[in-house]
Amino acid sequence: MEYSFSDRVQALKPSAIREIFKYAADPEVVSLSAGNPSPEAFPIEEIKEISSRLLEENPIGVLQYSVTEGYPQLRETLKEYMKSHHNVGKDFDDILITTGAQQIMDLATKSLVNEGDVVITEAPSFIGSLNTFRSYNAKLVGVKIDDDGMNMEELEKALQTHKNARFIYTIPNFQNPSGITMSLEKRKKMYELAKKYNVLILEDNPYGDLRYSGEYIPCIKSFDDEGIVLYAGSMSKVISPGIRVAYVIAPKPIFQKMVVCKQGNDVHTNIWSQMVCNELMTKYDFDAHLEKLRNLYRKKAQFMMDLMDKYLVPMGITYAKITGGLFTMCTLPDYVDMQEFCKDAIKNKVCVVPGNAFLTDESEECHTFRVNFSTPTDEQLEKGIKLLAKTAENYIK
Amino acid sequence: MEYSFSDRVQALKPSAIREIFKYAADPEVVSLSAGNPSPEAFPIEEIKEISSRLLEENPIGVLQYSVTEGYPQLRETLKEYMKSHHNVGKDFDDILITTGAQQIMDLATKSLVNEGDVVITEAPSFIGSLNTFRSYNAKLVGVKIDDDGMNMEELEKALQTHKNARFIYTIPNFQNPSGITMSLEKRKKMYELAKKYNVLILEDNPYGDLRYSGEYIPCIKSFDDEGIVLYAGSMSKVISPGIRVAYVIAPKPIFQKMVVCKQGNDVHTNIWSQMVCNELMTKYDFDAHLEKLRNLYRKKAQFMMDLMDKYLVPMGITYAKITGGLFTMCTLPDYVDMQEFCKDAIKNKVCVVPGNAFLTDESEECHTFRVNFSTPTDEQLEKGIKLLAKTAENYIK
Repeated sequence: MEYSFSDRVQALKPSAIREIFKYAADPEVVSLSAGNPSPEAFPIEEIKEISSRLLEENPIGVLQYSVTEGYPQLRETLKEYMKSHHNVGKDFDDILITTGAQQIMDLATKSLVNEGDVVITEAPSFIGSLNTFRSYNAKLVGVKIDDDGMNMEELEKALQTHKNARFIYTIPNFQNPSGITMSLEKRKKMYELAKKYNVLILEDNPYGDLRYSGEYIPCIKSFDDEGIVLYAGSMSKVISPGIRVAYVIAPKPIFQKMVVCKQGNDVHTNIWSQMVCNELMTKYDFDAHLEKLRNLYRKKAQFMMDLMDKYLVPMGITYAKITGGLFTMCTLPDYVDMQEFCKDAIKNKVCVVPGNAFLTDESEECHTFRVNFSTPTDEQLEKGIKLLAKTAENYIK
Repeated sequence: MEYSFSDRVQALKPSAIREIFKYAADPEVVSLSAGNPSPEAFPIEEIKEISSRLLEENPIGVLQYSVTEGYPQLRETLKEYMKSHHNVGKDFDDILITTGAQQIMDLATKSLVNEGDVVITEAPSFIGSLNTFRSYNAKLVGVKIDDDGMNMEELEKALQTHKNARFIYTIPNFQNPSGITMSLEKRKKMYELAKKYNVLILEDNPYGDLRYSGEYIPCIKSFDDEGIVLYAGSMSKVISPGIRVAYVIAPKPIFQKMVVCKQGNDVHTNIWSQMVCNELMTKYDFDAHLEKLRNLYRKKAQFMMDLMDKYLVPMGITYAKITGGLFTMCTLPDYVDMQEFCKDAIKNKVCVVPGNAFLTDESEECHTFRVNFSTPTDEQLEKGIKLLAKTAENYIK
């Protein structure tokens, strides 16, 4: 049987990262390619306690159908949390609980973007989001990132050129994959440009609560007086990714369309996990939990940077200073073929993600690769960085 | 701010049933409009036991990111279950775990249907699926249902007329909303027609294991030698709908496209709940659990039919005999305005779903309404049917 598929999925490929994970699954390979929280980061005891209490006190609530908008108590808790911690959420906004933040990308694109419409993204950007935009036949326009976030001249040029741009997708804090954080000045500028050119902003902030150094910078959504920003938050990096709970705060008319789309997508998010998140945030000291995570990752980030300073920098490989999140991007000298380097690294039993996987045009020349420091143990980090240095020996002049 | 939306969602409305649920939420109203499992149907003690054991033995497995295809052990368990119980699944097939069966409708439509392509469905059919097809701008063509399932002459006519039909959507067992089951003969005929006209079949079977009387009829997928059937199964009616776990068995090339679409949709299904389902199916007597559910619902179904025989049939209201599933459809005499009847029923504090909500063209003349017997208590069922009879007094000549 010859199968034919819809135009929108004809060209879709499995994520390049997923392919790399196949190598990473080899127990002999040190994987610096993942984006998983540290196994030490999960509030296991609390979840045990909450889960058995919920199943005791309200088993039907845990197991029965629920509403598309999300568990009402969790929506309330997150509304208050985002208001008090990040000044996010106005009267014209509403909040929808989603099955991971990936679903926010899906619902936003489905609601807002016609085939052929433009989505402007940072280049590089999170491959999962890019692939979702592509799956609706959106045209991706990448704007390069400077050390302080998206280049604003290029962004304005892109907005002038592409009249059918529907939204700007940005990860302002500890961006995946670059690790870069957008300055306050640029956040304000991006908001002004979006207003001027009548496009929306989709602000994706999975790592916002994981800052290890430097000063807090307000979310773009906190300036949103006009109702042009969709804010995506997630429990994946602060509670658990396996339970797939995230949320979007968006102006009510957009919220309503997203609710209708979610109804047709998965009816509602796993209610058991929503209830667990709400208990964790209200009956336990959630701020203390976040502080614990920051302490855990701050140490790991510093350990990673020390290793890179010692083994990679002398080989001419630079990296963006880690101030939060789970990643940083390394840059090879520009005479090194990055694809060859990454393949050789795998032969040497260390696995990283080639930087072009994150580009809107994967065929562009690229000398970067992404490394993660949250998933490996300290021993694995040390071994992995040494193996990268060993790989570099063959390339560096 | 004026928001503009994509063409595909411009016309999407919240499901009519959801609107009705607002009335049903009034504690004074007896709701026969839901589709929830009975609160008595949940294996609460088993889930308690499994969940605390999993969090003890493998907490990282429960909370960490997992793979898009689904929990490998659950995929294996379901493969074996479907092979041994329903002779479903061939070497050319593979199985994907999804976030409820609603997501199967989404992934199948996204993978297979271009805007303007035709999806052929039973009329009436499950509104949730119809709305998902609509959300991709598929054109719905409804084929009427006889007492033994979809009318095959009309189906063939539809296939001849609509060369761009991509698949036939059918719920062969205890259909939602009609309660009707397709005969073996018609199942074979549908398969032959699909083959002849080169379209796929999406067989949705959430109630297949809930037969209360009559003989087992094989799934359409069990005849599938050509790889033209997608089979949708679900845990919602046999374990819990709140945890959103379902599965699709489809030919590998279609499976692969659905995996890529799911990656962009929600990355993977809640892994905790997948593991719970697998434990329930392997470490407990799952067949005995299903038998328990059938005994519970058989009693409720009989109770409901006795009530309808006593109070509604004498008023000229007929219904389809309940042999399985959670619903049946009542038919009013054709001189009664069904919409008015349903509105008056709400005034009388009983809530049912108007039949036209399930039609591909909601404006068609319609004299039916759907009733559910799984969610209400016996007391509520009795009260509800009596209130329907009272409502009918004003209409019946």
